[in-house]
Amino acid sequence: MSNSSDIDEREEGLTFRPKFDASGLVTCVATDAVTGDVLMVAHMNEEALRKTIDSGEAWYFSRSRNALWRKGETSGQTQRVREMRMDCDQDAVWLRVEQVGAACHTGRHSCFYRRLTAGEGGPQLAFVDAEQLFDPKAVYRT
Amino acid sequence: MSNSSDIDEREEGLTFRPKFDASGLVTCVATDAVTGDVLMVAHMNEEALRKTIDSGEAWYFSRSRNALWRKGETSGQTQRVREMRMDCDQDAVWLRVEQVGAACHTGRHSCFYRRLTAGEGGPQLAFVDAEQLFDPKAVYRT
Repeated sequence: MSNSSDIDEREEGLTFRPKFDASGLVTCVATDAVTGDVLMVAHMNEEALRKTIDSGEAWYFSRSRNALWRKGETSGQTQRVREMRMDCDQDAVWLRVEQVGAACHTGRHSCFYRRLTAGEGGPQLAFVDAEQLFDPKAVYRT
Repeated sequence: MSNSSDIDEREEGLTFRPKFDASGLVTCVATDAVTGDVLMVAHMNEEALRKTIDSGEAWYFSRSRNALWRKGETSGQTQRVREMRMDCDQDAVWLRVEQVGAACHTGRHSCFYRRLTAGEGGPQLAFVDAEQLFDPKAVYRT
């Protein structure tokens, strides 16, 4: 357990002290520096955080591939970091980025291309801002 | 493992099918519907999602308190949901909200009140938009 002075320092101090979870990760939200739209939610381990800070380009850690990953290394759709903020307990990072093209692996500018709507049998999804800027089959060739 | 038609349906379909993690949670990002600022990153379980959809006010699940939690139930700083979006693999939710007062338990409008700066000995934090709108000691009385 953390004691209260630890919590005070993490929340009110100016020491960069990310609080990694049991898997060694913090949650990261990237927003478009121009429009403010949320582009994606991903994770960073300590190395991804360091590489992002050092290079000014976003690096993440893929939980599904268990690998460090420079955003855009396959697709070319990189993210230049304009500003980086930590939240109160330092377990989440907000990146304001200049997104080249599409943030989403489906080829869309944002991963959040569907909004919830009220359907007859309960909530449903509806596409919004869902134009595909590239063809994922052509880009990833998996 | 999911097969590819499952993935296609989750990513390209219009069925609301949230993908909860091993703890039964999805990640949730709340942004200010007016300014676009990221207010907080939190989690929802199935019940929090349902109550948010049904009531139009944000409910979350607190991992530290292991409890469902209506945003603002203690502080009065509620969140009215303007729009709710799911991400590509439906394990993250984006809420655009009208925030009453402060989203952060420290009394600040956003939890992201410190940005990273380059310090002499490595990265440091600096306050930004860090005005306290309420006194947490007076509000929470813990």
